Amino acid sequence: MTVKQLSMPELVDACLELGVPGVGLWREPVRTYGLEATAKLIRDAGLTVTTLCRGGFFTAIDPAERTKALDDNRRAVEEAATLGTEVLVLVSGGLPAGSKDLHGARERIADALAELGPYAEQHGVRLAIEPLHPMYASDRCVVSTLTQALDLAERFPAHQVGVTVDTYHIWWDDRAPAQIARAGAGGRIHTFQLADWTTPLPEGVLNGRGQIGDGAIDMREWKAYVEAAGYTGAIEVELFNDGLWARGGREVLAETAERFVQHVL
Amino acid sequence: MTVKQLSMPELVDACLELGVPGVGLWREPVRTYGLEATAKLIRDAGLTVTTLCRGGFFTAIDPAERTKALDDNRRAVEEAATLGTEVLVLVSGGLPAGSKDLHGARERIADALAELGPYAEQHGVRLAIEPLHPMYASDRCVVSTLTQALDLAERFPAHQVGVTVDTYHIWWDDRAPAQIARAGAGGRIHTFQLADWTTPLPEGVLNGRGQIGDGAIDMREWKAYVEAAGYTGAIEVELFNDGLWARGGREVLAETAERFVQHVL
Repeated sequence: MTVKQLSMPELVDACLELGVPGVGLWREPVRTYGLEATAKLIRDAGLTVTTLCRGGFFTAIDPAERTKALDDNRRAVEEAATLGTEVLVLVSGGLPAGSKDLHGARERIADALAELGPYAEQHGVRLAIEPLHPMYASDRCVVSTLTQALDLAERFPAHQVGVTVDTYHIWWDDRAPAQIARAGAGGRIHTFQLADWTTPLPEGVLNGRGQIGDGAIDMREWKAYVEAAGYTGAIEVELFNDGLWARGGREVLAETAERFVQHVL
Repeated sequence: MTVKQLSMPELVDACLELGVPGVGLWREPVRTYGLEATAKLIRDAGLTVTTLCRGGFFTAIDPAERTKALDDNRRAVEEAATLGTEVLVLVSGGLPAGSKDLHGARERIADALAELGPYAEQHGVRLAIEPLHPMYASDRCVVSTLTQALDLAERFPAHQVGVTVDTYHIWWDDRAPAQIARAGAGGRIHTFQLADWTTPLPEGVLNGRGQIGDGAIDMREWKAYVEAAGYTGAIEVELFNDGLWARGGREVLAETAERFVQHVL
Protein backbone atom coordinates (compact mmCIF):
# COMPACT_ATOMS: atom_id res chain seq x y z
CA MET A 1 0.00 0.00 0.00
CA THR A 2 2.99 2.29 0.51
CA VAL A 3 3.37 2.33 -3.28
CA LYS A 4 -0.13 1.42 -4.36
CA GLN A 5 0.39 3.48 -7.53
CA LEU A 6 2.52 0.60 -8.85
CA SER A 7 0.91 -2.36 -10.60
CA MET A 8 1.81 -5.78 -9.22
CA PRO A 9 4.48 -6.46 -11.91
CA GLU A 10 5.92 -2.96 -11.44
CA LEU A 11 6.06 -3.55 -7.68
CA VAL A 12 7.90 -6.85 -8.13
CA ASP A 13 10.37 -5.29 -10.56
CA ALA A 14 11.03 -2.38 -8.20
CA CYS A 15 11.56 -4.70 -5.24
CA LEU A 16 14.04 -6.81 -7.22
CA GLU A 17 15.89 -3.76 -8.47
CA LEU A 18 16.20 -2.25 -5.00
CA GLY A 19 16.98 -5.47 -3.18
CA VAL A 20 13.78 -5.42 -1.15
CA PRO A 21 13.35 -9.11 -0.29
CA GLY A 22 9.70 -9.22 0.76
CA VAL A 23 6.45 -7.40 0.48
CA GLY A 24 3.25 -7.17 2.54
CA LEU A 25 0.21 -7.30 0.28
CA TRP A 26 -3.31 -5.95 0.62
CA ARG A 27 -6.25 -7.94 -0.61
CA GLU A 28 -7.64 -5.35 -3.04
CA PRO A 29 -4.56 -5.07 -5.31
CA VAL A 30 -4.17 -8.86 -5.16
CA ARG A 31 -7.76 -9.23 -6.35
CA THR A 32 -7.16 -6.71 -9.14
CA TYR A 33 -4.18 -8.64 -10.51
CA GLY A 34 -5.69 -12.01 -9.64
CA LEU A 35 -4.90 -14.20 -6.64
CA GLU A 36 -3.21 -17.07 -8.46
CA ALA A 37 -1.42 -14.73 -10.84
CA THR A 38 -0.07 -12.67 -7.93
CA ALA A 39 1.07 -15.78 -6.08
CA LYS A 40 2.93 -17.02 -9.18
CA LEU A 41 4.43 -13.62 -9.96
CA ILE A 42 5.85 -13.17 -6.47
CA ARG A 43 7.00 -16.78 -6.19
CA ASP A 44 8.74 -16.73 -9.56
CA ALA A 45 10.52 -13.53 -8.58
CA GLY A 46 11.85 -15.17 -5.42
CA LEU A 47 10.16 -12.60 -3.18
CA THR A 48 8.49 -13.34 0.15
CA VAL A 49 4.94 -12.26 0.94
CA THR A 50 5.47 -11.08 4.50
CA THR A 51 1.81 -10.59 5.44
CA LEU A 52 -1.63 -10.23 3.91
CA CYS A 53 -3.71 -7.26 5.00
CA ARG A 54 -6.39 -7.50 6.08
CA GLY A 55 -9.10 -9.49 7.74
CA GLY A 56 -11.16 -8.42 10.70
CA PHE A 57 -14.13 -6.10 11.12
CA PHE A 58 -15.65 -8.42 13.66
CA THR A 59 -17.69 -5.98 15.72
CA ALA A 60 -21.12 -6.12 14.04
CA ILE A 61 -24.07 -7.09 16.21
CA ASP A 62 -26.41 -8.15 13.40
CA PRO A 63 -26.10 -11.95 12.92
CA ALA A 64 -26.21 -11.73 9.11
CA GLU A 65 -23.41 -9.17 9.13
CA ARG A 66 -21.39 -11.31 11.51
CA THR A 67 -21.79 -14.37 9.27
CA LYS A 68 -20.75 -12.33 6.25
CA ALA A 69 -17.69 -11.00 8.07
CA LEU A 70 -16.62 -14.48 9.14
CA ASP A 71 -17.09 -15.80 5.59
CA ASP A 72 -14.97 -12.99 4.27
CA ASN A 73 -12.28 -13.72 6.83
CA ARG A 74 -12.20 -17.39 5.86
CA ARG A 75 -11.58 -16.26 2.30
CA ALA A 76 -8.80 -13.98 3.54
CA VAL A 77 -7.18 -16.94 5.29
CA GLU A 78 -7.36 -18.96 2.07
CA GLU A 79 -5.87 -16.07 0.11
CA ALA A 80 -3.01 -15.78 2.60
CA ALA A 81 -2.31 -19.50 2.22
CA THR A 82 -2.39 -19.23 -1.58
CA LEU A 83 0.01 -16.31 -1.50
CA GLY A 84 2.36 -18.32 0.69
CA THR A 85 2.32 -16.00 3.68
CA GLU A 86 1.83 -17.27 7.21
CA VAL A 87 0.34 -14.06 8.59
CA LEU A 88 -3.05 -12.44 8.12
CA VAL A 89 -3.29 -8.99 9.71
CA LEU A 90 -6.61 -8.22 11.41
CA VAL A 91 -8.17 -4.80 11.92
CA SER A 92 -10.88 -5.47 14.42
CA GLY A 93 -13.59 -3.00 13.44
CA GLY A 94 -15.19 -0.03 15.16
CA LEU A 95 -18.42 0.52 17.05
CA PRO A 96 -21.60 -0.55 15.25
CA ALA A 97 -23.80 2.40 14.25
CA GLY A 98 -25.41 3.92 17.33
CA SER A 99 -23.51 1.78 19.81
CA LYS A 100 -21.38 3.26 22.61
CA ASP A 101 -20.30 -0.09 24.01
CA LEU A 102 -16.56 -0.52 23.48
CA HIS A 103 -16.34 -3.46 25.87
CA GLY A 104 -19.10 -5.39 24.09
CA ALA A 105 -17.46 -4.78 20.72
CA ARG A 106 -14.16 -6.13 22.05
CA GLU A 107 -15.90 -9.27 23.30
CA ARG A 108 -17.44 -9.91 19.88
CA ILE A 109 -13.92 -9.91 18.44
CA ALA A 110 -13.04 -12.73 20.80
CA ASP A 111 -16.11 -14.66 19.65
CA ALA A 112 -15.01 -14.30 16.03
CA LEU A 113 -11.43 -15.33 16.79
CA ALA A 114 -12.68 -18.51 18.43
CA GLU A 115 -14.18 -19.49 15.09
CA LEU A 116 -11.48 -18.16 12.84
CA GLY A 117 -8.37 -19.27 14.78
CA PRO A 118 -8.73 -23.02 14.12
CA TYR A 119 -9.65 -22.36 10.49
CA ALA A 120 -6.47 -20.29 10.06
CA GLU A 121 -4.40 -23.01 11.74
CA GLN A 122 -5.70 -25.59 9.27
CA HIS A 123 -4.38 -23.37 6.50
CA GLY A 124 -1.01 -22.70 8.13
CA VAL A 125 -1.92 -19.08 8.76
CA ARG A 126 -1.52 -17.08 11.97
CA LEU A 127 -3.83 -14.18 12.78
CA ALA A 128 -2.19 -10.91 13.86
CA ILE A 129 -4.51 -8.56 15.75
CA GLU A 130 -3.42 -5.01 15.03
CA PRO A 131 -4.13 -2.46 17.73
CA LEU A 132 -4.89 0.80 15.97
CA HIS A 133 -4.20 4.24 17.41
CA PRO A 134 -6.97 5.36 19.82
CA MET A 135 -8.05 7.97 17.30
CA TYR A 136 -9.60 5.10 15.31
CA ALA A 137 -11.47 3.57 18.26
CA SER A 138 -14.98 4.52 17.21
CA ASP A 139 -14.98 3.91 13.49
CA ARG A 140 -12.24 1.46 12.66
CA CYS A 141 -10.76 -0.50 15.51
CA VAL A 142 -11.92 -0.80 19.11
CA VAL A 143 -8.60 -2.47 19.98
CA SER A 144 -6.48 0.56 20.81
CA THR A 145 -3.45 -0.74 22.69
CA LEU A 146 -1.04 -3.63 22.53
CA THR A 147 -2.28 -4.56 26.01
CA GLN A 148 -5.83 -4.98 24.73
CA ALA A 149 -4.64 -6.89 21.66
CA LEU A 150 -2.67 -9.30 23.83
CA ASP A 151 -5.52 -9.70 26.28
CA LEU A 152 -7.54 -10.92 23.30
CA ALA A 153 -4.80 -12.96 21.64
CA GLU A 154 -3.83 -14.81 24.80
CA ARG A 155 -7.23 -16.46 24.98
CA PHE A 156 -6.03 -18.54 22.00
CA PRO A 157 -2.90 -20.53 21.11
CA ALA A 158 -0.01 -18.35 19.88
CA HIS A 159 0.18 -20.25 16.57
CA GLN A 160 -3.41 -19.19 15.94
CA VAL A 161 -3.55 -15.62 17.25
CA GLY A 162 -0.86 -13.02 17.89
CA VAL A 163 -0.42 -9.31 17.33
CA THR A 164 0.88 -6.76 14.87
CA VAL A 165 3.34 -4.30 16.37
CA ASP A 166 3.07 -1.06 14.36
CA THR A 167 5.04 1.95 15.55
CA TYR A 168 2.47 4.43 14.25
CA HIS A 169 -0.25 3.09 16.51
CA ILE A 170 1.68 2.52 19.73
CA TRP A 171 4.58 4.97 19.84
CA TRP A 172 2.82 7.27 22.35
CA ASP A 173 2.11 4.45 24.82
CA ASP A 174 4.62 4.19 27.66
CA ARG A 175 3.34 0.68 28.39
CA ALA A 176 4.03 -0.59 24.87
CA PRO A 177 7.68 -1.61 25.43
CA ALA A 178 6.66 -3.92 28.28
CA GLN A 179 3.81 -5.27 26.14
CA ILE A 180 6.22 -6.04 23.31
CA ALA A 181 8.26 -8.06 25.79
CA ARG A 182 5.06 -9.84 26.87
CA ALA A 183 4.16 -10.54 23.24
CA GLY A 184 7.63 -11.82 22.44
CA ALA A 185 7.73 -14.10 25.46
CA GLY A 186 4.50 -15.68 24.26
CA GLY A 187 5.66 -16.01 20.66
CA ARG A 188 2.93 -13.63 19.58
CA ILE A 189 4.73 -10.91 17.59
CA HIS A 190 3.46 -12.01 14.20
CA THR A 191 4.63 -8.94 12.32
CA PHE A 192 6.41 -5.64 12.91
CA GLN A 193 5.41 -2.58 10.88
CA LEU A 194 6.85 0.92 10.69
CA ALA A 195 5.42 4.33 9.92
CA ASP A 196 6.41 7.67 11.37
CA TRP A 197 4.16 10.11 13.25
CA THR A 198 3.87 13.48 11.53
CA THR A 199 1.54 16.40 12.12
CA PRO A 200 -0.74 18.09 11.29
CA LEU A 201 -2.94 15.05 10.74
CA PRO A 202 -5.05 15.21 7.57
CA GLU A 203 -8.85 15.27 7.59
CA GLY A 204 -10.12 11.79 8.45
CA VAL A 205 -6.66 10.93 9.88
CA LEU A 206 -6.22 7.95 7.57
CA ASN A 207 -3.59 9.00 5.08
CA GLY A 208 -1.10 10.92 7.18
CA ARG A 209 1.34 8.15 8.06
CA GLY A 210 4.77 9.73 7.79
CA GLN A 211 7.77 8.57 5.81
CA ILE A 212 10.40 6.96 8.05
CA GLY A 213 12.54 9.66 9.63
CA ASP A 214 10.11 12.52 9.01
CA GLY A 215 8.37 12.37 12.38
CA ALA A 216 8.46 11.88 16.14
CA ILE A 217 9.21 8.15 16.35
CA ASP A 218 12.63 6.73 17.16
CA MET A 219 12.57 3.68 14.86
CA ARG A 220 15.75 2.11 16.22
CA GLU A 221 14.32 2.20 19.73
CA TRP A 222 11.25 0.20 18.67
CA LYS A 223 13.31 -2.18 16.56
CA ALA A 224 15.44 -2.81 19.65
CA TYR A 225 12.30 -3.62 21.67
CA VAL A 226 11.03 -6.24 19.23
CA GLU A 227 14.51 -7.73 18.79
CA ALA A 228 14.99 -7.93 22.55
CA ALA A 229 11.63 -9.72 22.62
CA GLY A 230 13.03 -12.33 20.24
CA TYR A 231 11.42 -11.19 17.01
CA THR A 232 13.43 -12.19 13.92
CA GLY A 233 10.77 -11.80 11.22
CA ALA A 234 10.32 -9.24 8.50
CA ILE A 235 10.09 -5.51 9.15
CA GLU A 236 7.40 -3.90 7.01
CA VAL A 237 7.07 -0.23 6.15
CA GLU A 238 3.41 0.63 5.74
CA LEU A 239 2.65 4.23 4.75
CA PHE A 240 -0.75 5.57 3.80
CA ASN A 241 0.12 9.01 2.63
CA ASP A 242 -1.53 11.09 -0.06
CA GLY A 243 1.70 12.99 -0.64
CA LEU A 244 3.68 9.80 -1.26
CA TRP A 245 0.93 8.33 -3.43
CA ALA A 246 1.01 11.41 -5.65
CA ARG A 247 4.65 10.74 -6.55
CA GLY A 248 6.17 8.04 -8.74
CA GLY A 249 5.93 4.68 -7.00
CA ARG A 250 9.42 3.53 -7.88
CA GLU A 251 10.88 6.80 -6.55
CA VAL A 252 8.89 6.43 -3.31
CA LEU A 253 10.04 2.84 -2.88
CA ALA A 254 13.65 3.86 -3.44
CA GLU A 255 13.31 6.69 -0.91
CA THR A 256 11.67 4.35 1.59
CA ALA A 257 14.47 1.79 1.22
CA GLU A 258 17.01 4.56 1.75
CA ARG A 259 15.20 5.83 4.85
CA PHE A 260 15.02 2.27 6.13
CA VAL A 261 18.78 1.90 5.87
CA GLN A 262 19.32 5.32 7.44
CA HIS A 263 16.83 5.19 10.34
CA VAL A 264 16.19 1.51 11.03
CA LEU A 265 19.25 -0.59 10.20
CA MET B 1 -14.59 28.34 24.40
CA THR B 2 -17.70 26.34 23.47
CA VAL B 3 -19.35 29.66 22.59
CA LYS B 4 -16.32 31.82 21.93
CA GLN B 5 -18.36 33.84 19.45
CA LEU B 6 -20.06 35.50 22.45
CA SER B 7 -18.50 38.53 24.13
CA MET B 8 -17.99 38.25 27.87
CA PRO B 9 -21.16 40.25 28.71
CA GLU B 10 -23.18 38.23 26.15
CA LEU B 11 -21.86 35.04 27.70
CA VAL B 12 -22.85 36.14 31.20
CA ASP B 13 -26.33 37.16 30.00
CA ALA B 14 -26.84 33.86 28.20
CA CYS B 15 -25.72 31.86 31.25
CA LEU B 16 -28.12 33.75 33.50
CA GLU B 17 -31.00 33.37 31.05
CA LEU B 18 -30.44 29.61 30.66
CA GLY B 19 -29.74 28.90 34.32
CA VAL B 20 -26.14 27.85 33.71
CA PRO B 21 -24.55 28.47 37.13
CA GLY B 22 -20.87 28.48 36.25
CA VAL B 23 -18.46 28.88 33.41
CA GLY B 24 -14.92 27.76 32.65
CA LEU B 25 -12.90 30.58 31.13
CA TRP B 26 -9.93 30.68 28.81
CA ARG B 27 -7.17 33.20 29.29
CA GLU B 28 -7.40 34.85 25.85
CA PRO B 29 -11.03 36.05 26.07
CA VAL B 30 -10.40 37.13 29.66
CA ARG B 31 -7.47 39.22 28.47
CA THR B 32 -9.58 40.71 25.69
CA TYR B 33 -12.28 41.89 28.09
CA GLY B 34 -9.80 42.67 30.84
CA LEU B 35 -8.96 40.54 33.87
CA GLU B 36 -10.40 42.76 36.59
CA ALA B 37 -13.43 43.65 34.47
CA THR B 38 -14.15 39.97 33.81
CA ALA B 39 -13.80 39.11 37.49
CA LYS B 40 -16.23 41.87 38.45
CA LEU B 41 -18.70 41.02 35.67
CA ILE B 42 -18.89 37.35 36.64
CA ARG B 43 -18.96 38.07 40.39
CA ASP B 44 -21.71 40.67 40.07
CA ALA B 45 -23.78 38.21 38.03
CA GLY B 46 -23.49 35.60 40.76
CA LEU B 47 -21.81 33.10 38.46
CA THR B 48 -18.96 30.78 39.40
CA VAL B 49 -15.75 30.56 37.41
CA THR B 50 -15.29 26.79 37.43
CA THR B 51 -11.76 26.69 35.97
CA LEU B 52 -9.26 28.78 34.09
CA CYS B 53 -7.72 27.28 30.94
CA ARG B 54 -4.87 27.03 30.55
CA GLY B 55 -1.36 26.91 31.84
CA GLY B 56 1.26 24.38 30.92
CA PHE B 57 3.56 23.92 27.91
CA PHE B 58 6.38 22.79 30.14
CA THR B 59 8.34 20.60 27.76
CA ALA B 60 10.89 23.02 26.30
CA ILE B 61 14.56 22.15 26.74
CA ASP B 62 15.97 25.64 26.19
CA PRO B 63 16.47 27.33 29.61
CA ALA B 64 15.19 30.72 28.41
CA GLU B 65 12.04 29.11 27.03
CA ARG B 66 11.55 27.22 30.28
CA THR B 67 11.88 30.38 32.33
CA LYS B 68 9.42 32.14 30.06
CA ALA B 69 6.94 29.29 30.37
CA LEU B 70 7.18 29.28 34.17
CA ASP B 71 6.70 33.05 34.30
CA ASP B 72 3.64 32.75 32.13
CA ASN B 73 2.27 30.02 34.36
CA ARG B 74 2.74 32.15 37.46
CA ARG B 75 0.70 34.83 35.74
CA ALA B 76 -1.97 32.23 34.94
CA VAL B 77 -2.10 31.28 38.62
CA GLU B 78 -2.55 34.93 39.57
CA GLU B 79 -5.29 35.32 36.95
CA ALA B 80 -7.10 32.26 38.31
CA ALA B 81 -6.96 33.73 41.81
CA THR B 82 -8.25 37.08 40.59
CA LEU B 83 -11.12 35.38 38.77
CA GLY B 84 -12.01 33.52 41.94
CA THR B 85 -11.51 30.03 40.59
CA GLU B 86 -9.53 27.41 42.48
CA VAL B 87 -8.51 25.41 39.41
CA LEU B 88 -5.98 26.11 36.68
CA VAL B 89 -6.06 23.53 33.87
CA LEU B 90 -2.65 22.54 32.48
CA VAL B 91 -1.90 21.27 28.99
CA SER B 92 1.57 19.91 29.32
CA GLY B 93 3.10 20.59 25.90
CA GLY B 94 4.40 18.39 23.10
CA LEU B 95 7.85 17.31 21.98
CA PRO B 96 10.38 20.10 21.40
CA ALA B 97 11.30 20.51 17.71
CA GLY B 98 13.46 17.62 16.57
CA SER B 99 13.09 15.62 19.79
CA LYS B 100 11.75 12.06 19.89
CA ASP B 101 12.09 11.70 23.67
CA LEU B 102 8.62 11.40 25.21
CA HIS B 103 9.98 10.23 28.55
CA GLY B 104 12.34 13.19 28.89
CA ALA B 105 9.55 15.61 28.05
CA ARG B 106 7.35 14.06 30.75
CA GLU B 107 10.13 14.47 33.31
CA ARG B 108 10.50 18.15 32.47
CA ILE B 109 6.82 18.58 33.30
CA ALA B 110 7.51 17.22 36.78
CA ASP B 111 10.38 19.70 37.19
CA ALA B 112 8.04 22.58 36.31
CA LEU B 113 5.29 21.34 38.65
CA ALA B 114 7.77 21.29 41.53
CA GLU B 115 8.25 25.03 41.05
CA LEU B 116 4.68 25.92 40.18
CA GLY B 117 2.79 23.80 42.73
CA PRO B 118 3.83 25.79 45.85
CA TYR B 119 3.23 29.07 44.01
CA ALA B 120 -0.29 27.95 43.11
CA GLU B 121 -0.92 26.86 46.70
CA GLN B 122 0.04 30.32 47.97
CA HIS B 123 -2.67 31.73 45.70
CA GLY B 124 -5.33 29.18 46.66
CA VAL B 125 -5.17 27.57 43.23
CA ARG B 126 -4.93 23.86 42.39
CA LEU B 127 -3.25 22.69 39.18
CA ALA B 128 -5.16 20.17 37.06
CA ILE B 129 -2.99 18.20 34.62
CA GLU B 130 -5.11 17.34 31.60
CA PRO B 131 -4.16 14.20 29.74
CA LEU B 132 -4.88 14.85 26.07
CA HIS B 133 -5.85 12.18 23.56
CA PRO B 134 -2.79 10.28 22.23
CA MET B 135 -3.32 11.92 18.83
CA TYR B 136 -1.88 15.10 20.40
CA ALA B 137 1.19 13.42 21.91
CA SER B 138 3.79 14.90 19.56
CA ASP B 139 2.67 18.49 19.16
CA ARG B 140 0.50 19.43 22.12
CA CYS B 141 0.63 17.16 25.15
CA VAL B 142 2.97 14.30 25.93
CA VAL B 143 0.68 13.27 28.80
CA SER B 144 -1.72 10.93 26.98
CA THR B 145 -3.49 8.95 29.69
CA LEU B 146 -5.01 9.50 33.09
CA THR B 147 -2.47 7.00 34.40
CA GLN B 148 0.42 9.17 33.24
CA ALA B 149 -1.25 12.31 34.58
CA LEU B 150 -1.71 10.72 38.00
CA ASP B 151 1.83 9.35 38.01
CA LEU B 152 2.92 12.98 37.64
CA ALA B 153 0.37 14.50 40.01
CA GLU B 154 1.04 12.06 42.83
CA ARG B 155 4.58 13.32 43.21
CA PHE B 156 2.98 16.44 44.73
CA PRO B 157 0.32 17.17 47.38
CA ALA B 158 -3.25 16.81 46.07
CA HIS B 159 -4.09 20.40 47.01
CA GLN B 160 -1.31 21.48 44.66
CA VAL B 161 -1.62 19.09 41.73
CA GLY B 162 -4.46 16.91 40.45
CA VAL B 163 -5.97 16.02 37.10
CA THR B 164 -8.62 17.05 34.61
CA VAL B 165 -10.95 14.22 33.61
CA ASP B 166 -12.19 14.97 30.08
CA THR B 167 -14.31 12.36 28.32
CA TYR B 168 -13.03 13.32 24.88
CA HIS B 169 -9.46 12.41 25.73
CA ILE B 170 -9.94 9.21 27.72
CA TRP B 171 -13.14 7.53 26.53
CA TRP B 172 -11.25 4.89 24.48
CA ASP B 173 -9.08 3.83 27.45
CA ASP B 174 -10.32 0.73 29.28
CA ARG B 175 -8.04 1.63 32.19
CA ALA B 176 -9.56 5.08 32.67
CA PRO B 177 -12.41 4.02 34.99
CA ALA B 178 -9.95 2.52 37.47
CA GLN B 179 -7.77 5.61 37.15
CA ILE B 180 -10.75 7.84 37.95
CA ALA B 181 -11.24 5.81 41.11
CA ARG B 182 -7.54 6.25 41.91
CA ALA B 183 -7.78 10.00 41.30
CA GLY B 184 -10.90 10.31 43.43
CA ALA B 185 -9.40 8.35 46.33
CA GLY B 186 -6.49 10.79 46.34
CA GLY B 187 -8.71 13.87 46.10
CA ARG B 188 -7.18 14.68 42.73
CA ILE B 189 -10.15 15.09 40.37
CA HIS B 190 -9.89 18.84 40.06
CA THR B 191 -12.36 19.19 37.21
CA PHE B 192 -14.58 17.05 34.98
CA GLN B 193 -15.11 18.06 31.35
CA LEU B 194 -17.35 16.67 28.64
CA ALA B 195 -17.16 16.52 24.86
CA ASP B 196 -18.39 13.80 22.55
CA TRP B 197 -16.30 11.82 20.05
CA THR B 198 -17.47 12.27 16.48
CA THR B 199 -15.87 11.29 13.18
CA PRO B 200 -14.49 12.01 10.65
CA LEU B 201 -11.95 14.11 12.50
CA PRO B 202 -11.15 17.45 10.84
CA GLU B 203 -7.72 18.36 9.48
CA GLY B 204 -5.39 19.08 12.41
CA VAL B 205 -7.86 17.26 14.74
CA LEU B 206 -8.30 20.27 17.01
CA ASN B 207 -11.79 21.52 16.32
CA GLY B 208 -13.81 18.33 15.96
CA ARG B 209 -15.04 17.90 19.54
CA GLY B 210 -18.62 16.72 19.21
CA GLN B 211 -21.75 18.19 20.78
CA ILE B 212 -22.95 16.07 23.71
CA GLY B 213 -25.04 13.17 22.40
CA ASP B 214 -23.74 13.34 18.83
CA GLY B 215 -20.99 10.78 19.23
CA ALA B 216 -19.66 7.54 20.66
CA ILE B 217 -19.34 8.44 24.34
CA ASP B 218 -21.80 7.37 27.03
CA MET B 219 -21.79 10.53 29.17
CA ARG B 220 -23.82 9.04 32.02
CA GLU B 221 -21.34 6.20 32.35
CA TRP B 222 -18.43 8.62 32.84
CA LYS B 223 -20.43 10.84 35.14
CA ALA B 224 -21.13 7.76 37.24
CA TYR B 225 -17.41 6.98 37.41
CA VAL B 226 -16.45 10.41 38.72
CA GLU B 227 -19.38 10.48 41.15
CA ALA B 228 -18.48 7.02 42.46
CA ALA B 229 -14.98 8.42 42.96
CA GLY B 230 -16.43 11.15 45.19
CA TYR B 231 -16.37 14.06 42.77
CA THR B 232 -18.99 16.68 43.54
CA GLY B 233 -17.60 19.65 41.61
CA ALA B 234 -18.75 21.33 38.44
CA ILE B 235 -19.25 19.51 35.16
CA GLU B 236 -17.94 21.54 32.24
CA VAL B 237 -18.84 21.11 28.59
CA GLU B 238 -15.86 22.09 26.44
CA LEU B 239 -16.41 21.93 22.68
CA PHE B 240 -13.97 23.17 20.06
CA ASN B 241 -16.02 22.80 16.95
CA ASP B 242 -15.93 24.92 13.82
CA GLY B 243 -19.54 23.98 13.06
CA LEU B 244 -20.75 25.17 16.46
CA TRP B 245 -18.64 28.32 16.30
CA ALA B 246 -20.24 29.22 12.96
CA ARG B 247 -23.69 29.35 14.60
CA GLY B 248 -25.14 31.90 16.99
CA GLY B 249 -23.51 31.57 20.38
CA ARG B 250 -26.72 31.89 22.38
CA GLU B 251 -28.37 29.19 20.27
CA VAL B 252 -25.37 26.88 20.76
CA LEU B 253 -25.37 27.48 24.51
CA ALA B 254 -29.09 26.71 24.67
CA GLU B 255 -28.61 23.53 22.65
CA THR B 256 -25.69 22.51 24.84
CA ALA B 257 -27.73 23.04 28.01
CA GLU B 258 -30.54 20.95 26.51
CA ARG B 259 -28.13 18.16 25.54
CA PHE B 260 -26.66 18.29 29.04
CA VAL B 261 -30.08 17.72 30.58
CA GLN B 262 -30.86 14.97 28.08
CA HIS B 263 -27.58 13.02 28.09
CA VAL B 264 -25.87 13.84 31.37
CA LEU B 265 -28.38 14.56 34.11
